[in-house]
Amino acid sequence: MLERFLVPEKDQILIDSDSMIEATRQIFLKMGLSNEDSKLSSEVLLTSDLRGCESHGVSNMLPIYIDRYNQKGDLGINPKPNFKITRESPTTANVDGDDGLGLHVLPKAMEIAIEKAEKYGTGSVAVHNSRHIGMLAYHSMMALEHDMIGLTMTAGNSLNVVPTHGAEARLATNPWAYAVPADKEPPFVFDIATTQVAGNKLMLAKRVGAKMDPGWITDSKGAPILEEVDLPDNREDYLMLPFGGTRENGSHKGYGYAVVAEIFCDILSGMGAGFLMPPSTYGEMGHFVQAVKIDGFIDASKFKKDMDLLLRGLVETKPVEGQDRVVYAGLPEHEETEIRLNKGIPYHYKVIDWFENIKAELGLDFDLKKM
Amino acid sequence: MLERFLVPEKDQILIDSDSMIEATRQIFLKMGLSNEDSKLSSEVLLTSDLRGCESHGVSNMLPIYIDRYNQKGDLGINPKPNFKITRESPTTANVDGDDGLGLHVLPKAMEIAIEKAEKYGTGSVAVHNSRHIGMLAYHSMMALEHDMIGLTMTAGNSLNVVPTHGAEARLATNPWAYAVPADKEPPFVFDIATTQVAGNKLMLAKRVGAKMDPGWITDSKGAPILEEVDLPDNREDYLMLPFGGTRENGSHKGYGYAVVAEIFCDILSGMGAGFLMPPSTYGEMGHFVQAVKIDGFIDASKFKKDMDLLLRGLVETKPVEGQDRVVYAGLPEHEETEIRLNKGIPYHYKVIDWFENIKAELGLDFDLKKM
Repeated sequence: MLERFLVPEKDQILIDSDSMIEATRQIFLKMGLSNEDSKLSSEVLLTSDLRGCESHGVSNMLPIYIDRYNQKGDLGINPKPNFKITRESPTTANVDGDDGLGLHVLPKAMEIAIEKAEKYGTGSVAVHNSRHIGMLAYHSMMALEHDMIGLTMTAGNSLNVVPTHGAEARLATNPWAYAVPADKEPPFVFDIATTQVAGNKLMLAKRVGAKMDPGWITDSKGAPILEEVDLPDNREDYLMLPFGGTRENGSHKGYGYAVVAEIFCDILSGMGAGFLMPPSTYGEMGHFVQAVKIDGFIDASKFKKDMDLLLRGLVETKPVEGQDRVVYAGLPEHEETEIRLNKGIPYHYKVIDWFENIKAELGLDFDLKKM
Repeated sequence: MLERFLVPEKDQILIDSDSMIEATRQIFLKMGLSNEDSKLSSEVLLTSDLRGCESHGVSNMLPIYIDRYNQKGDLGINPKPNFKITRESPTTANVDGDDGLGLHVLPKAMEIAIEKAEKYGTGSVAVHNSRHIGMLAYHSMMALEHDMIGLTMTAGNSLNVVPTHGAEARLATNPWAYAVPADKEPPFVFDIATTQVAGNKLMLAKRVGAKMDPGWITDSKGAPILEEVDLPDNREDYLMLPFGGTRENGSHKGYGYAVVAEIFCDILSGMGAGFLMPPSTYGEMGHFVQAVKIDGFIDASKFKKDMDLLLRGLVETKPVEGQDRVVYAGLPEHEETEIRLNKGIPYHYKVIDWFENIKAELGLDFDLKKM
């Protein structure tokens, strides 16, 4: 992440990750999730916080999830979804997520994809009627220990992104994540939104007082704002741009990748385009995962050794003047994980206050351990 | 394409596409390709010219291919490659392209992928030791008539792209193309380089005298040039940037997608990273194609109707002030094809001169029909 999104040091409280995973697990359990799903969901959120991807960790996401679990009717998340395969072929499946949180629905979809890939070389699973999946990398990374390449995409109808030259929101931030194993080097893990900035990072920016760069957002009429600005307070006063920003700078590429995610997640799963969904389905999301078995093309051991050479070669690239080094996707996150496992995860003090309040409110008995 | 890349009207000669495909077929035949491969290769090039994607048509590519067919030793293209599957699983294959031009090697790889997808739901084929594949969209679009989604990627060692913050070229332009069928609407066909501008468009820009935008290329030390400039004459005086341009504007996204293509095409096919290939293999490229059968997830007829709604919805989006309309990837190319089939393809007069010269040189008997 760009530095401006980090919690300023003066506002940080360092918390032991195990104590935070336990707190989060208890909260999910209280929301009505099964033991297994509570454990899985807290693991997904904390993997995100450990990787330095706090935009998708407990700070932003947990309060929203709780709101939705408490919501009655169509908009509420189902704590005990009936996970069901609605269509299947040897290498494909379509899963009904039954309004369950993607945090625990999607790992099960990925398990099916991995099982199919183990037998046939590839496995692909679309999921309909599910909810937010947290950090995509988690799901893609499930493929790594099987010597497979993992792909995750998600889409839905939380519309805030304009198509290139469009004045109306037609897409969500429709992110992608690939995970590819290496031998001795940390894996390549590429996890991005198809917008200039991930939606959750806007919330982070607000909390830490960071500015929007030129070409990150539009004005209320869809025109790209080409100067540095604060994020408007009112959600109706801006829209988001596909990555690239302007057409000249390649926003049709971000727009195109966003539409691909829309197709694999919403159309292929049978939900229909996000912007055409009826209001009663607001919050529902489609997902897509794919596992590709390396051994179907080449010896996995040769592949992983070649990955080491590729990744090391990228890191050894001479940096441009003014920069310390060249990295590859997944390397800084791997390094951050090592640091945070030892030193704790830096949370904004307001986040810790929130946990203390929710602990009292829900009558839980966790203890966040300060480092 | 951006307007600046088009051949200026005063320099245009309109040529009937059938006569150009015949001329191109004869040239390939003279290079030693089989009847079938000559036909296929000319079809790929002309599909590109018809779609208005002249960066990958006869103007730029044919002279280069001829040079390489005439080259002896490691660097030459093999006109009669021995296409061979070196490893296979029910849904995957690895193909030795035997230094054959990707224009006719890759359609055969895609046929294998489609056959596997027909049986098992998905099919994926990596190709090693092949050459340039022309416009990627051609190969992906082969999947359309089978009610499948097609994906094509390619990579190699014609290095000219820096990683984010890097001062040395480590990647090729590593493009991607997805093709997705619709019912009544023209298909979604998304075909892009992972650089700010496709490599071949730089040549086009040179021919038509177009400028480089800020953030399109770097200086010789890898620093992004943030003003409008002419393309330097000397290839050593600039490098290309991943899409996004600068880190703040998201170049790590272009860089990441480029590395994904590198992995699927070069590492998974067993060639090793492009920038680590020995000089004797310069020009060799790895490719990857995938076909996904829609029916493995949802009825293809429902899918295609939903695609119509998605694509029409995007086109009906209110445009931002100053723009005529919103399009989706593949729509302008579809419209351009209809126009060019009727009115002819506008070539630069220098390109037509080149054809007349090569006709005399090789003793061919085609006639380019002016419209």
